[in-house]
Amino acid sequence: MTMNNEKTTIVLFSGELDKAIAAFIIANGAAAYDHDVTIFFTFWGLNALRKDEKVFVKKGFLEKMFAKMMPRGANKLGLSKMHFGGMGPKMIKHVMKKHNALSLPELIELAQEQGVKLVACTMTMDLLGLQKEELLDGIEYAGVAAYLGDAADAKVNLFI
Amino acid sequence: MTMNNEKTTIVLFSGELDKAIAAFIIANGAAAYDHDVTIFFTFWGLNALRKDEKVFVKKGFLEKMFAKMMPRGANKLGLSKMHFGGMGPKMIKHVMKKHNALSLPELIELAQEQGVKLVACTMTMDLLGLQKEELLDGIEYAGVAAYLGDAADAKVNLFI
Amino acid sequence: MTMNNEKTTIVLFSGELDKAIAAFIIANGAAAYDHDVTIFFTFWGLNALRKDEKVFVKKGFLEKMFAKMMPRGANKLGLSKMHFGGMGPKMIKHVMKKHNALSLPELIELAQEQGVKLVACTMTMDLLGLQKEELLDGIEYAGVAAYLGDAADAKVNLFI
Repeated sequence: MTMNNEKTTIVLFSGELDKAIAAFIIANGAAAYDHDVTIFFTFWGLNALRKDEKVFVKKGFLEKMFAKMMPRGANKLGLSKMHFGGMGPKMIKHVMKKHNALSLPELIELAQEQGVKLVACTMTMDLLGLQKEELLDGIEYAGVAAYLGDAADAKVNLFI
Repeated sequence: MTMNNEKTTIVLFSGELDKAIAAFIIANGAAAYDHDVTIFFTFWGLNALRKDEKVFVKKGFLEKMFAKMMPRGANKLGLSKMHFGGMGPKMIKHVMKKHNALSLPELIELAQEQGVKLVACTMTMDLLGLQKEELLDGIEYAGVAAYLGDAADAKVNLFI
Repeated sequence: MTMNNEKTTIVLFSGELDKAIAAFIIANGAAAYDHDVTIFFTFWGLNALRKDEKVFVKKGFLEKMFAKMMPRGANKLGLSKMHFGGMGPKMIKHVMKKHNALSLPELIELAQEQGVKLVACTMTMDLLGLQKEELLDGIEYAGVAAYLGDAADAKVNLFI
């Protein structure tokens, strides 16, 4: 990444499978064109970064409840439309496989390989009681100031 | 459209009436100021481009199910809030008529007249099993690369 | 505010507590870096600007129904996720207090102190039957043209 690359930033606020897929398709596309891409994960978007397995960390009561109620990782996210108690996500995953489209975990891996900067919002991590041990390896941690710094330099800034 | 016009792009991801109306009001406003405007329809946003009438095309089982479950065209979209089993959209349509606001089908027509580029995302068309015959005439077809090309040149880029 | 400041615009379309908080955190952050920031409130986003108390204004039947069904002010908004009949917002407010995070009404106050321009979309005010007396003091009123003028000059434009 040089200073001359075009920049793209995405705030992923939503915790739904379809929106996360859209965010990563745009991010991976921009990275393929040598943009410096940052995805800033905040609120429910953080759930896409959670590890699949249960991680044992000390938490207060409310933090435990949030952790239980929120989907644990990219494989568990629901749909923003036509969720139908989990049938919708299965249908989408099925058609994506059939069309050889990358799954969300594969899209995240590709993004990391391409150098897309994945940044977890530390303020909402605090609020929701999420700890670094619970999130994917190789990501960064920052607050809104860092996001604004990136966004002010970027041509394309999306809130998803 | 010359090369010197300012550019505006909108990704319409959402399939709801209120969000589609917001997208087209912004797009038509920008076009009125001589911006080159592109709306890129992806995921549920594609439903706003579906023709009203049933179009007979050969489809697999899942594609038929998606086609059945998703709203067919701009007149059938629901609301993101206060849908109330369809009463919400009726109320909104009623007050829009009362205030002489353009309906969504009229906003789409105006956009086409003003030269707003309506682009259907071919990747999600594949996933959802939507075929060109089922979508409005006069639209374009492209993938995420084309969107990124437009967005990198634009001043205003929104994800709706 | 001078002409040389960087500009940031946010369209707040959504009427949910979590999205409104995200919008105001970004807006206040940008204002702290001396950006000229405008939040343009449209559709359900207008509910964040409603006064807490009931305001008596003359309205038609549909307008009365909208006024009843929509949340009255920043304290009454629901969550986009895990609303659970109002328990979710209570949990979020509780953890925000515990972490000394500003509440939404406090974030709005801070934004006004920092000179963030809060603009109510007059077109959707008409549609939803909201009148100036019902909205917070010290805000501005404009249409989509004013928004587009601001957005065309801004580096960061988000739709939330």
